Amino acid sequence: MRALRFHGRQDLRIDDVPEPEAGPGQIKVKVDWCGICGTDLHEFQAGPIYVPSTAPHPLTGELAPVVMGHEFAGRVAAVGEGVTDVQVGDAVTVEPSIRCDACVACEDGRYNICETRGVYGLSGWGGGLAEYCVVDRRNVHILPPSVPTDVGALVEPLAVAWHAVRNSGFEAGQDALVVGAGPIGLALLLCLKAHGARWVGISEMSAARKQLAGQLGADDVLDPRTDDVVDRARKATGGTGPHVAFDASGLPVTLETAITAVRTRGTVCNVAIWEEPAPVDMQLLQNGEKTLRSTLCYAGDDYPEVVAALSDGRLSPGALITARVPLDEAVDGGFRQLLDNKDQHVKLLIAP
Amino acid sequence: MRALRFHGRQDLRIDDVPEPEAGPGQIKVKVDWCGICGTDLHEFQAGPIYVPSTAPHPLTGELAPVVMGHEFAGRVAAVGEGVTDVQVGDAVTVEPSIRCDACVACEDGRYNICETRGVYGLSGWGGGLAEYCVVDRRNVHILPPSVPTDVGALVEPLAVAWHAVRNSGFEAGQDALVVGAGPIGLALLLCLKAHGARWVGISEMSAARKQLAGQLGADDVLDPRTDDVVDRARKATGGTGPHVAFDASGLPVTLETAITAVRTRGTVCNVAIWEEPAPVDMQLLQNGEKTLRSTLCYAGDDYPEVVAALSDGRLSPGALITARVPLDEAVDGGFRQLLDNKDQHVKLLIAP
Repeated sequence: MRALRFHGRQDLRIDDVPEPEAGPGQIKVKVDWCGICGTDLHEFQAGPIYVPSTAPHPLTGELAPVVMGHEFAGRVAAVGEGVTDVQVGDAVTVEPSIRCDACVACEDGRYNICETRGVYGLSGWGGGLAEYCVVDRRNVHILPPSVPTDVGALVEPLAVAWHAVRNSGFEAGQDALVVGAGPIGLALLLCLKAHGARWVGISEMSAARKQLAGQLGADDVLDPRTDDVVDRARKATGGTGPHVAFDASGLPVTLETAITAVRTRGTVCNVAIWEEPAPVDMQLLQNGEKTLRSTLCYAGDDYPEVVAALSDGRLSPGALITARVPLDEAVDGGFRQLLDNKDQHVKLLIAP
Repeated sequence: MRALRFHGRQDLRIDDVPEPEAGPGQIKVKVDWCGICGTDLHEFQAGPIYVPSTAPHPLTGELAPVVMGHEFAGRVAAVGEGVTDVQVGDAVTVEPSIRCDACVACEDGRYNICETRGVYGLSGWGGGLAEYCVVDRRNVHILPPSVPTDVGALVEPLAVAWHAVRNSGFEAGQDALVVGAGPIGLALLLCLKAHGARWVGISEMSAARKQLAGQLGADDVLDPRTDDVVDRARKATGGTGPHVAFDASGLPVTLETAITAVRTRGTVCNVAIWEEPAPVDMQLLQNGEKTLRSTLCYAGDDYPEVVAALSDGRLSPGALITARVPLDEAVDGGFRQLLDNKDQHVKLLIAP
């Protein structure tokens, strides 16, 4: 079968690889759609970061080249021995977490912070940028008929945002600021509204993303070049500032905006990936006794809850999909397209 | 009366100033003992930081020179009109918070993070490094007979630690690491034990402070030059790391130790004053979904609870007092002594 594999930095190739078969307890998924994530772009440009390159991944035992793609959905092509609750033909989305089941985090159900965690599509065992992927039964969530598989490929970034909203302590009726309207920032906007946010402000510079943020229900779309984001956020929230602020950009200036804007004793939640230490103005945190939290991926109920919210209409993320590209064009038409025209896209889906 | 006043950086003077009198709702305190705080040393060396020097403080209306000293206790010398529940001769400790009573934080009872807050002993209205100080009734807490006024002068740093322990989410039976065994680090140790800590480890380099930490009940006293603090903390806590870690030093390396050592989903609580942005390894926070919190001073029940814990013996901080110096010698025998021999002292008290 055809698969996009990471061989090294700037070296992605469409390879012919053996078609995987479902072993006991496993499910073979025919991939319909797979999104390209910011992490994938990082890996392409500056990797290997997550892809194991010098030693085999402790759980998968694999090294580069590995199949990429961890935001995917499709149809069940085959089920392995012992799998009785999923049928061939079912539409499914894949939760790509690979975990050890032995560490403190795993024992606690927090497999997103498993000490040796891996990800289908980065750590080996295949991925979504291929015609087929075989995963364990527990990594598969059945999509109801109302959720098509292109939307199913958005469950992963939505689950990141859903998990962050839950972990931020956000409650219905509260206010939130989101700094950055990339795929995760917009997913946060949708998830906050689904959680009953009164006001969500979003700060962004790209014209296309600002327009989309408004379309998706942001109460205020702010541009840090022309708006005083902190002041606008305060004014929109009765002078106090929002209860929670999310940094979905991961720059010193965006983190500072989030910390400054959030109300006293509020929570700043980082969902960005930082490559270098973040400069945190501790006085700013301290003078308002603010909390800084950083969340990662998803676990437990996050995927099922996102699927349920998609099914009943609390989440309508279709507008996040800004392009669809066939697998054979995934390198130039997908990865390079996104890197060269980042501001024009939100979520680009590949069709294997 | 004699008072130690801040005139400018490196310029503290024992001045003769008018003796203040208690107005309506106020209390005149004859100061027995006043501690010198790390903040006072910062002010002396690198100030003015908190002392208003270019514009009058918004609440006191005063500018340097101001009387210093905010950790003090003594006897009531006079009560102003309308004060009926405090008697002349009562032993009291002073909570030095000055607040606006109008901002969101004040309305919420969180006057420690009042937007325009001030402090007796830094912001004007007098302070504890003087024979007398006049404060509002609400700033006075009566000491029971079992708590002498020298211990009363320790309530302030103990309340800082008490507040931090409360805000960290620490619960009885849990484990904690304290990085730094200065006055606040040792106060944290005492407050954690008073809150029912199972294990408290403390990391420190000074021989005198390490010895005192052991004497005050630390379960493990670790020296970062010879011990792997993170590894030792993990081993002492069944391999998981402590539930909470306090940074009472405020250095990049101590903050990193605290973040690394705390268990997954644990809380790092900063109680140090940082002059520059703190470099926070966001990946380290994120990979364990750890929380970073920064707390300031005390409010509400903190002072009364510390006084109660001193009274019933849950807190026994007498050993923190390492020297006693008369007011006339406070500059050389107090401030300079502490700066030159920091590692030999914990809490030095001045007797006005």
